[in-house]
Amino acid sequence: MERIRLGIVGMGNMGCGHADYLTKGAVKGVELTAVADQSREKLNQAVSRFGEHLKTFTDTEDMYRSGTVDGVLICTPHYDHPPEAIKALKYGLHVLIEKPAGVYTKQVREMNEAAAASGKVFGIMYNQRSNPLYAKLRELIVSGELGEVRRTNWIITNWYRSQSYYDSGGWRGTWAGEGGGVLINQDPHQLDLWQWTTGLKPKRMRAFCSFGKYRNIEVENDVTAYVEYENGATGVFVTSTFESPGTNRFEVSGERGKIVVEDGKLTFWRLRQPETEFNAMYQGGFGQPECWKIDIPVKQEEGQHRAITQDWADAILHGKPLLAPGEEGIHGLMLSNAMLLSTWINDWVDFPIDEDLFYEKLQERIRESTFRKPQTEGITLDVSGTH
Amino acid sequence: MERIRLGIVGMGNMGCGHADYLTKGAVKGVELTAVADQSREKLNQAVSRFGEHLKTFTDTEDMYRSGTVDGVLICTPHYDHPPEAIKALKYGLHVLIEKPAGVYTKQVREMNEAAAASGKVFGIMYNQRSNPLYAKLRELIVSGELGEVRRTNWIITNWYRSQSYYDSGGWRGTWAGEGGGVLINQDPHQLDLWQWTTGLKPKRMRAFCSFGKYRNIEVENDVTAYVEYENGATGVFVTSTFESPGTNRFEVSGERGKIVVEDGKLTFWRLRQPETEFNAMYQGGFGQPECWKIDIPVKQEEGQHRAITQDWADAILHGKPLLAPGEEGIHGLMLSNAMLLSTWINDWVDFPIDEDLFYEKLQERIRESTFRKPQTEGITLDVSGTH
Repeated sequence: MERIRLGIVGMGNMGCGHADYLTKGAVKGVELTAVADQSREKLNQAVSRFGEHLKTFTDTEDMYRSGTVDGVLICTPHYDHPPEAIKALKYGLHVLIEKPAGVYTKQVREMNEAAAASGKVFGIMYNQRSNPLYAKLRELIVSGELGEVRRTNWIITNWYRSQSYYDSGGWRGTWAGEGGGVLINQDPHQLDLWQWTTGLKPKRMRAFCSFGKYRNIEVENDVTAYVEYENGATGVFVTSTFESPGTNRFEVSGERGKIVVEDGKLTFWRLRQPETEFNAMYQGGFGQPECWKIDIPVKQEEGQHRAITQDWADAILHGKPLLAPGEEGIHGLMLSNAMLLSTWINDWVDFPIDEDLFYEKLQERIRESTFRKPQTEGITLDVSGTH
Repeated sequence: MERIRLGIVGMGNMGCGHADYLTKGAVKGVELTAVADQSREKLNQAVSRFGEHLKTFTDTEDMYRSGTVDGVLICTPHYDHPPEAIKALKYGLHVLIEKPAGVYTKQVREMNEAAAASGKVFGIMYNQRSNPLYAKLRELIVSGELGEVRRTNWIITNWYRSQSYYDSGGWRGTWAGEGGGVLINQDPHQLDLWQWTTGLKPKRMRAFCSFGKYRNIEVENDVTAYVEYENGATGVFVTSTFESPGTNRFEVSGERGKIVVEDGKLTFWRLRQPETEFNAMYQGGFGQPECWKIDIPVKQEEGQHRAITQDWADAILHGKPLLAPGEEGIHGLMLSNAMLLSTWINDWVDFPIDEDLFYEKLQERIRESTFRKPQTEGITLDVSGTH
């Protein structure tokens, strides 16, 4: 294949964002040929905005079997990512899905199995993996510069969302519509990066979610999670949507020092001697290893959607390994599911989590929801500045 | 009274530190007249260092009834603070105790009751309350500048302690000797400031302690605690002794912005309009209140022991209210006890904690301890730079 004919599924905010850079030719080897959406109006808008040549489909399966696309980029609501991916894979298409991988891991595991069986290229839009800050953090950990990790701490509370944001779509902030709150909508990148940059495997977690705090919503918008990793390290993840201006600070402490990513900067406090070695030799009272504070040079750029689409195209066209394999979407989602589950059962959750139990508890919430909010659906928000 | 004749009880590191500035006349209205210690050698050293005129006592009760002192500064090992304070109060003396107030709240409550009944001035060496950074933080919260507090987060992991530190005294890092680890020895100031600066009342807590992590000790040296306050706010406290260089960062988020105390600086991200007000009015998608980043001017000085001793003396001599009343020592200690208790029972702990249960569990640890370490007792550490 020399050129991938791409279809976009779901022409909401994110779908249009992808169509925009694709029609400008920003991704080599990819041509946008088709768009699908349940709304005929949205399809018409897409055609007038992105080109009369686009094939349009109100039924996604019609698109998958139409012969007009070699791969699809799935930008539907969260719940539909796995079923749409599975369908597209069955029709022999390559698949790139928006984040999150899905709402519950049980569903995502099925998608992963379908992808593995298909032999097709399956990617996920974890564009923050291409953010030089986090790519560098991972490199410093993987290369051993930081030594064994002993603690992680991410405060990611700069997801301010007003009540009017939640009111802008009937599905927002509901169990039936989104399957969760800040964890499923705002945090998927951080939850992925938390595990991807450190490479740590969680062993068990205890988490504390508040639901509809200072906001008229039914889902979680305030979370503190504590995790114990297989190597004995511990970690904390704090997130919310009501704090202004909020914080985005990720600290990783290791045997050879400490790294903090904050305000677009990566700072490495580097020990000249590993702590373990120092501790074994030192005979004094209050001493500690010599430490250098280092500003690690990192390009000031955000992770780009375009870069992930290019990466996925290169994997299809040239067999390059994916930066963000779709199968890895389950890791961040399992952290997210674990946080809710631990809150719901008011107890520890071991990894891998009990997927059936999570599914059951989620269904309970959907079934028993009495939450009604003012219907102001249909407002299209300007998503510039979001990821 | 025009002049307080002061006795110091316990001439270890801290006792000598206090004697040093007192003999230099650094505290107005106070004269050091006597010292007590079980060790005759330490008393001899004290006399040769701080003056031949000092009365010396190997039995503290002899000092209390000797008529040579009007007040005492108690610098014994932690466990002895309450019984010594109670004894001194009974002899009609004013009392200033070193931190922590004690090892378990049951014991400290008895001390508080004795102090209340005595009518004497009872203070605690919470010198960090005189640190301009934390005094300013408290002022900004108490005055309403920050609005209602919604989250607290203190990462205090810069208590690096090597194995040789723990080995320098047989009592260090043992249940029988100290009654705890980082919480009882290193963190009392932060635990006090955590509650004193914010004024928040804890409702329940879930905490996770690790014991003897990367170190040959039996007590906790790695703690993550999650707290829910009566007003609905939440908080996190993370502390350890094996991280180098570690972090000391205290963030408080409120309805009117966010304050961070770190690296000797206080930064206030101040909203022009309270978040609640903005949220009630705003009709858009991703907006948030206008925010100013403000560097609050704060003098670069540590909280001083001398200042607390002066404050206590002024309370005795001039009836001024205490900055650090002894009765308030129980608040920080209860947080510390709650963290251990939650770990031991692997469950939530409600406030006020079950003091008998904590006492019982602590006695179990002392009774069942099989921990033995190399005896290198008697090394005197240079404590400059500690609080």
